[in-house]
Amino acid sequence: MSTAPAADLDRYIEGNLNRSIEEMKRLCAVPSVAAQGRGLGECAELVAALLRERGFEARVMEVPSAPPAVYAERRGTSDRTLLFYNHYDVQPAEPLELWETPPFEPSEREGKLFARGVADDKGHIVCRLAALDAVLASYGDLPCNVKFLIEGGEEISSPGIPEFVSRHRDLLAADACIWESGGVDYDDRPDITLGMRGICYVELRVRTASRDAHSGFGGSIMPNAAWRLVWALNAIKGTDGRIRVPGHYDSVREPSAKDVELLEALPDQEQQIKETYGISEFLHGLTGLELRRAAVFEPTCTICGLSSGYEGDGPKTVLPAYAMAKVDFRLVPDQTPEGVVENLRRYLEREGFGDVEVTFLGGERPAKVDPDDPFVQMTIRTAREVYGQEPVVRPIVGGSGPMYPFVVDLGLPVSNTGIGYPHARAHAPNEHVRLSDFVLGTRHTARVISEFASTRSAR
Amino acid sequence: MSTAPAADLDRYIEGNLNRSIEEMKRLCAVPSVAAQGRGLGECAELVAALLRERGFEARVMEVPSAPPAVYAERRGTSDRTLLFYNHYDVQPAEPLELWETPPFEPSEREGKLFARGVADDKGHIVCRLAALDAVLASYGDLPCNVKFLIEGGEEISSPGIPEFVSRHRDLLAADACIWESGGVDYDDRPDITLGMRGICYVELRVRTASRDAHSGFGGSIMPNAAWRLVWALNAIKGTDGRIRVPGHYDSVREPSAKDVELLEALPDQEQQIKETYGISEFLHGLTGLELRRAAVFEPTCTICGLSSGYEGDGPKTVLPAYAMAKVDFRLVPDQTPEGVVENLRRYLEREGFGDVEVTFLGGERPAKVDPDDPFVQMTIRTAREVYGQEPVVRPIVGGSGPMYPFVVDLGLPVSNTGIGYPHARAHAPNEHVRLSDFVLGTRHTARVISEFASTRSAR
Repeated sequence: MSTAPAADLDRYIEGNLNRSIEEMKRLCAVPSVAAQGRGLGECAELVAALLRERGFEARVMEVPSAPPAVYAERRGTSDRTLLFYNHYDVQPAEPLELWETPPFEPSEREGKLFARGVADDKGHIVCRLAALDAVLASYGDLPCNVKFLIEGGEEISSPGIPEFVSRHRDLLAADACIWESGGVDYDDRPDITLGMRGICYVELRVRTASRDAHSGFGGSIMPNAAWRLVWALNAIKGTDGRIRVPGHYDSVREPSAKDVELLEALPDQEQQIKETYGISEFLHGLTGLELRRAAVFEPTCTICGLSSGYEGDGPKTVLPAYAMAKVDFRLVPDQTPEGVVENLRRYLEREGFGDVEVTFLGGERPAKVDPDDPFVQMTIRTAREVYGQEPVVRPIVGGSGPMYPFVVDLGLPVSNTGIGYPHARAHAPNEHVRLSDFVLGTRHTARVISEFASTRSAR
Repeated sequence: MSTAPAADLDRYIEGNLNRSIEEMKRLCAVPSVAAQGRGLGECAELVAALLRERGFEARVMEVPSAPPAVYAERRGTSDRTLLFYNHYDVQPAEPLELWETPPFEPSEREGKLFARGVADDKGHIVCRLAALDAVLASYGDLPCNVKFLIEGGEEISSPGIPEFVSRHRDLLAADACIWESGGVDYDDRPDITLGMRGICYVELRVRTASRDAHSGFGGSIMPNAAWRLVWALNAIKGTDGRIRVPGHYDSVREPSAKDVELLEALPDQEQQIKETYGISEFLHGLTGLELRRAAVFEPTCTICGLSSGYEGDGPKTVLPAYAMAKVDFRLVPDQTPEGVVENLRRYLEREGFGDVEVTFLGGERPAKVDPDDPFVQMTIRTAREVYGQEPVVRPIVGGSGPMYPFVVDLGLPVSNTGIGYPHARAHAPNEHVRLSDFVLGTRHTARVISEFASTRSAR
């Protein structure tokens, strides 16, 4: 079986755009909000039905302590297997009053489709379906085996997914994986992401007394929870930005020469970011390659929240008995959330902060793909052909996701195709996709499916 | 004119207790809440009327940026003048649902009178009136000139009072001052307070960007307001409790030998305090004299509140653009709030925390009276006689109040008499006084008025 002419695929996708729009509308009309436990079973069943319409064997499977996932597979004409990872759950739609049209009543206007979840990630599910339709119409069959894992808890940090993937290694066995999303950057260049940082989110809590005291009474003789918290935080990271927890950097892998080369090739967005956030310079005066490298290859420790005592207007003379901080560590390969928490607990104890309780609120491991992998290279090449622009290839991004078990447990090269753009307002009111991006992303996806069977990885 | 027999005064006070209770009820029925701007003019007029009934010339006077104050005077048979400082404003009554009877409907039960403000400070105003009644009934006249300054903003830190006192030095000229309140301690020993720490209350605010960022994006390249605040606070005070602002301790006066002697004579309440606050030990393991000394003679720096970023349940991956801390410095003689703020601003700037904005929310100077002053000694001796117990004499207390202008601008020895006890629940629901304490405090006050004319200060 030979590769289908690209023109056939493209023509089919354009010609069937209305069906895709209808399918995005059907999916987005189901308010499958994981954080609110709404519409999840219904949406999983709808996803499974859409896959079955394409001849897939699809089933809704339980995930431990999480919404169900949809697993589906269809055999193709080669022994090669491509796995798609997506999610059918969406962010809460609130604040509702900021939506121009209701979030779960999809609305098409100005060449765009507006709905909660259309960019993140339901439009991507339909993009995969439309690409499969084009391939099936052009070949009469699939040139490779195709599998789907479409989970329902991505927006609540994918609880249970690492365990699920690890438990179902045989079921999910594949040769490569296409990640949930992608699209174009500010300059309409296709964006390929080859890794994600990990995360370790903790809450630090200090209770120093059974009740608050009058600050005039206790100031020099009573323990103060807010001071304890401040000092504990200061012990964790100082003004130089270096995380002081012993062992924190031990398992950090330096970026490779190839990673650095990719960072150097990234477009310069410094001015754009400064304007967006109203800042005059980056931390420690970072700029150029050093900035790009720090942004994604440095472990971070971010205070996400602080709370203690009196937070209202004016003065109140209280000595707080309780204080709390939310702290988010972003991890780079090969750090692990478990290791970070363990080192942190041991360090605080040793530094005399045994009164600071460390509660683990969630974690994900960092993951990174080899940029030279032939599958990755094929996705980059096909992106270049479809978009007519040099792709932006990111060796890793600053955010986190459940990529680790796919890369390590399943041993897959992971790349992406997608329909997003920087103003899609994912997670915000008036989320949307541009239909032109949908067409391009679907053409790219169809090309990847077509060419995959003949692309061998080095492994 | 000779001193009236103590027995006459006591008999009169006991015999007229019902009138005093009625007057406390009248005063407490007016909800004169300074923080809420309620009932202040009405209450000032009622206080003036009660004084006029005793032959005082009384007027309601404006105080800059504050509720009006009541000034009153009545001449006596000597040239000596005794000034009473009190306040007619009260704390807010909220939370209302915790009151057994409505806060502004005074209720007498179990030998107690319950109402917002009855202990702090309206019962003390009536105590002074009842003592004057007893003295007038026994002598037919006052043995000294008596003046009152009864302000309406004590519960909101007495704004304008230092300026008012300084401006009206001639009007308020006197030879000694009885402070607003007093009473007995846990063991029913009369409590005499000879000084108050000062206070300097500031808010530290940091804004690092025009909007919050995603923590996955900004962690290693964007400034974080919460971290900036933590580091600035840590620069102000470390785990050793020492305030690191240069010059902060320069004007601190060591306690005198007499002060130390008074501290040594204080009752041991360590166990009681530990139980109240559920703590196993005091800061830095302080105990005994060192604890008592630190509690009142050390400058403090207390974080009263912290706020930044996400403070709700669970994780949210945000990098905060804004952070705020409330910080209360307690001052000892001869520190000043102005000096503390100036040193703090200069220090933060010099240490690289120019991004931390210091907003001054209010201050009061520390004040201390000579424990050997004959007036002070007379109040202690008469307390011993009335209560039949050795008084607890505190050279200074940890809290703050507007005592400085009375001690320094007017040059007065200040002591106190009062009707409170440790469980009076001042500032809390179900505030009350014990009528037995009212009688004792009034007897003490009458004795002080009687003996004052023949007590000369060393000045």
